[in-house]
Amino acid sequence: MQGTGPLIGILGGMGPLATAQFMAQVALLADARSDQQHCRSLVYSNPLLPDRSDAILNRGPSPLGGLLDGLALLDGCGADVIVMPCNTAHYWLSDLVSATPTPILSIVDAVTAALRDSGLRSGRVGLLGTEGLLRSGLYQGSLSAVGFAVVEPTRAELAELVEPAIRAIKAGDIDGASRPIARAIAALEERDVAAIVLGCTELPLAVTGRSSARGTPLVDSTRALALACLAWSSSFAPPAHRPLAAAS
Amino acid sequence: MQGTGPLIGILGGMGPLATAQFMAQVALLADARSDQQHCRSLVYSNPLLPDRSDAILNRGPSPLGGLLDGLALLDGCGADVIVMPCNTAHYWLSDLVSATPTPILSIVDAVTAALRDSGLRSGRVGLLGTEGLLRSGLYQGSLSAVGFAVVEPTRAELAELVEPAIRAIKAGDIDGASRPIARAIAALEERDVAAIVLGCTELPLAVTGRSSARGTPLVDSTRALALACLAWSSSFAPPAHRPLAAAS
Repeated sequence: MQGTGPLIGILGGMGPLATAQFMAQVALLADARSDQQHCRSLVYSNPLLPDRSDAILNRGPSPLGGLLDGLALLDGCGADVIVMPCNTAHYWLSDLVSATPTPILSIVDAVTAALRDSGLRSGRVGLLGTEGLLRSGLYQGSLSAVGFAVVEPTRAELAELVEPAIRAIKAGDIDGASRPIARAIAALEERDVAAIVLGCTELPLAVTGRSSARGTPLVDSTRALALACLAWSSSFAPPAHRPLAAAS
Repeated sequence: MQGTGPLIGILGGMGPLATAQFMAQVALLADARSDQQHCRSLVYSNPLLPDRSDAILNRGPSPLGGLLDGLALLDGCGADVIVMPCNTAHYWLSDLVSATPTPILSIVDAVTAALRDSGLRSGRVGLLGTEGLLRSGLYQGSLSAVGFAVVEPTRAELAELVEPAIRAIKAGDIDGASRPIARAIAALEERDVAAIVLGCTELPLAVTGRSSARGTPLVDSTRALALACLAWSSSFAPPAHRPLAAAS
């Protein structure tokens, strides 16, 4: 009990159900037989932050100030690592990284690693996410750097299937999201993709299983970040000096 | 965005999956159409705390020191209310209440209210939970004060069905918990109960639906606490002075 292990800082609430799902994945994927073998975490769930996609598309205010406040809160409480279970918010990742000495694990890197762990080395990969995420080019850059070509939904699929599904989940209507997501996945499959990235942490909540009805592998970004977090924790060596909160 | 609303402090990790489920319930039961209509929360998930049931049964160290440290952390970050999604930890509730001016919502009170909201006014009510919880008499006192008689599992049912199911969930094996919980519920139903309290936040994870296969109402303590939390939030009026963290 005395070797307390790392404190995982979670900058969450984008949305709140996706953050809960991330925490559930960390617990379910941990190699733990009892409570005491799980990791400690501190989660600041702030759903009041301005919409990330709207900000990227210049339709609304930036969430960066609120993200930095949340980061400072987690840092002040002694977080040893920070994760952000929201793909779109990674648009501001470099701003956050510059603001803290604490390591921040990137969900984009985690998904890229999960794709490669699935055995894929190159080819066409579908990407579902918010309009802001798609427009940001975050995944397109990361995936093309390791040999994948990203296939996006059409503008109509985004507006009529993907974004309504994300909004439904944020409103607690998981059932209402299942069918539009399945249709968006099927539409990408018509374009010869070897895998599909669920690049919004809301989406996996309304998708059952790790492959589509037709057998296309689905890369769950929530799960990928949870696995990255657990891998980080298992190799954690505590710094010489740790703040007060980390000792409790 | 500027009316930030309350910050819910969650003393969690007992166990971590139950805490994630509590957060999911708060999100799913909220009357929210978008992220920004949900509540902010700060969750300290500390699964390293000593086992609560063992401590009550004098088989292990007390978690009280760690609970107080967690409470101080949440208080220091500006929590407006504290909840603890662990029934057994409520054994130390009065110690925590004495240590802070911040209101703490009791899961036992929430379950008692949920029972009465279900229309029941008196009668025999089954109670499933850890051995420590049953021994503590927390629910027996609260429920008998409002006219219910508590029916407990036998010692054998506790040892062979309830506690193994709780342990399975803490180890991430939800499927492995379903059958023993169903058998424990069926055993209580043989003793003429009008409802059954799932008085451990692990148990609802392996139970589908809000009544048993035979139709007995099941009172989910995680859901009851989430509803109490949302009711509290909806009537929240901010104090005149709020700490820094609450403004982010």
